[in-house]
Amino acid sequence: MITLTSDFGTRDPYAGIMRSRIVQRAPQLPIIDLTHEISAFAVEQAGYWLYCCHPQFPAGTIHVAVVDPGVGSARAILVLEAAGQLFIAPDNGLLGLLAQSLPYRAYRVTDEALSRLHIAPSSATFHGRDIMAPLAAELGCQRIRADEVGPAHTPAPGRLACAQAMPDRSIRGTVALIDHYGNALTTIPGAALKSLRAPQVRFEQQSLRILRTYADAGPGECFALVNSASMLELATRQGSAAQALNIQPGRTMYLVETVAES
Amino acid sequence: MITLTSDFGTRDPYAGIMRSRIVQRAPQLPIIDLTHEISAFAVEQAGYWLYCCHPQFPAGTIHVAVVDPGVGSARAILVLEAAGQLFIAPDNGLLGLLAQSLPYRAYRVTDEALSRLHIAPSSATFHGRDIMAPLAAELGCQRIRADEVGPAHTPAPGRLACAQAMPDRSIRGTVALIDHYGNALTTIPGAALKSLRAPQVRFEQQSLRILRTYADAGPGECFALVNSASMLELATRQGSAAQALNIQPGRTMYLVETVAES
Amino acid sequence: MITLTSDFGTRDPYAGIMRSRIVQRAPQLPIIDLTHEISAFAVEQAGYWLYCCHPQFPAGTIHVAVVDPGVGSARAILVLEAAGQLFIAPDNGLLGLLAQSLPYRAYRVTDEALSRLHIAPSSATFHGRDIMAPLAAELGCQRIRADEVGPAHTPAPGRLACAQAMPDRSIRGTVALIDHYGNALTTIPGAALKSLRAPQVRFEQQSLRILRTYADAGPGECFALVNSASMLELATRQGSAAQALNIQPGRTMYLVETVAES
Repeated sequence: MITLTSDFGTRDPYAGIMRSRIVQRAPQLPIIDLTHEISAFAVEQAGYWLYCCHPQFPAGTIHVAVVDPGVGSARAILVLEAAGQLFIAPDNGLLGLLAQSLPYRAYRVTDEALSRLHIAPSSATFHGRDIMAPLAAELGCQRIRADEVGPAHTPAPGRLACAQAMPDRSIRGTVALIDHYGNALTTIPGAALKSLRAPQVRFEQQSLRILRTYADAGPGECFALVNSASMLELATRQGSAAQALNIQPGRTMYLVETVAES
Repeated sequence: MITLTSDFGTRDPYAGIMRSRIVQRAPQLPIIDLTHEISAFAVEQAGYWLYCCHPQFPAGTIHVAVVDPGVGSARAILVLEAAGQLFIAPDNGLLGLLAQSLPYRAYRVTDEALSRLHIAPSSATFHGRDIMAPLAAELGCQRIRADEVGPAHTPAPGRLACAQAMPDRSIRGTVALIDHYGNALTTIPGAALKSLRAPQVRFEQQSLRILRTYADAGPGECFALVNSASMLELATRQGSAAQALNIQPGRTMYLVETVAES
Repeated sequence: MITLTSDFGTRDPYAGIMRSRIVQRAPQLPIIDLTHEISAFAVEQAGYWLYCCHPQFPAGTIHVAVVDPGVGSARAILVLEAAGQLFIAPDNGLLGLLAQSLPYRAYRVTDEALSRLHIAPSSATFHGRDIMAPLAAELGCQRIRADEVGPAHTPAPGRLACAQAMPDRSIRGTVALIDHYGNALTTIPGAALKSLRAPQVRFEQQSLRILRTYADAGPGECFALVNSASMLELATRQGSAAQALNIQPGRTMYLVETVAES
């Protein structure tokens, strides 16, 4: 299975063109669009979705992420292997969160490997089509292994930090992105809840309860929950938490312990 | 064939994740997106599209509709069988229009059935991924029949009423939704025209002619036609009828007889 | 392989319904969405994308383009053969740019041919679903050849003109469309650069350098490049050239020679 993630939008045929290139080399592989509506050049959003979504995909899945403001420059293209899956992306921080969070091996794609696969970039501006799509097809058909694409390489770090334990036992996280419903998705894994007594979320001056599901909230209440990606999310029932709390991506929030007292 | 309908939007990877779950259990079944741009929580829009579109799909098609504001609450998940096809959706009114309009059998999905299929919800907030997608795959592969998912169940009624014959021989309908072109799609089936002499549409103070196709209208004329889903639609030539007539979903309109007189 | 291009938008299920019709007749053919977000009724945008994208598809690909303001009127449906591929579209100028630019043969689809294929339009308003989708499937399965769909026919010219050589050795082109990033795509093929000495782009009072890739531009610089479709494109680095230069589709621009002088 191959997935596609990009900032191409849906108005232009760029995603369809990548599919064409994959189908030509690997007609039998299912291709799934994760999203093509990453904000233009927002490499950290793409990396966050890959980090959140990859557990929903089986071993052997190949994820191609094309958010590539440096296309045509000297930035490398990487193949990162983690959780039994492969991630192909430019080396611009997109793979930083995955590399921070999971055991991985990563490799820098060389011209020699591409040439052995008869992959010849025909443009300086669309390496998603010219390199990453055909390479994904070749890896998907097992005509090449990840460790054969080039030398080991440490991915550039991303701007998005993992959740961080603080001296006062709180956990500091970042709002990674706002989804279509207005939910604010954070970098704090749901598992962090277990390490704290009676945890709550602190965002600016506000404390938010942690509930099990949207239906448990009071009307208009802003709250937090562990979402379907097992990440802490700020939400409101049938409304936009981003709007209600005035949250933008990049904002800091905390998971804190509360002690029951009068 | 499996179709997907939701209010996920296209910006987030939720639809792709549902596809992944289906592909893992039923790699050979074509999956078709009907739309993921149902307005957030607008169950009646999803139900209307299923009602309008299902005749375009072959017997055996399985439609999955995930507009699910009550996810995590006690609302049931249903499998409805009608017109030789299956419809999987939360029991929140989404299937009401179908159940009102067609002979059907419906069943409430039980935990026992899911457990027999090794479907184990891993979240309280994404039953589309955890239950409906894998269940659609299992039904599509005929590893379970609709009547084996649980006991018979009458779907909750929807907010959208079918067209209704009035004492004065007119037919009252509702604007169900506005499409991308600004056409206003109504709940009046095109077949209703046959029962009336010289029918016209009455919307507020205005009378609209009924034409065969868009190209038959005068420039700027608002008119009605029987659309490709065999439903009465208010339209204007190369423009937005919704804007020209100031129509919102939920508005009432009438199909009336006119008597040729001087 | 079949591709779909339309002005259906993504909010309504029209594209999914076309897929259903293709899958029913040709379940084994991959279907790729180029875009469904052509501006409503903008036939020249659809034609431009087909012109730019077709080199990315293999011989035998069938492209279906449904931008069809005249649906239900007497306008013909055409099958155009060029570059070893087929293009199915209404005869409303959509295929004009292709016909201007490439050697082609085109045929007007007759009712007799449709009837032999058991294609019976059931609506006056959705020939994409009723005629073009099933015809694409039949052509894709080679149950009919392009020259068997009807008599030869010259496609209606489009509003979008090819690049034109001017007496002063400059080349006049048109901005065909603005993509999702704000890049302005023109009708001047990149190959035209070779015929000029030290070429630059002249748009209104401004001169733009021609660079190899986005990463070569200075911050905020508006420039031109030969894009991945081998067409001249006006761009700015990580921003919208359309906004910066105040460009709309349809505007004229020139590729001019500059002579190095003091």
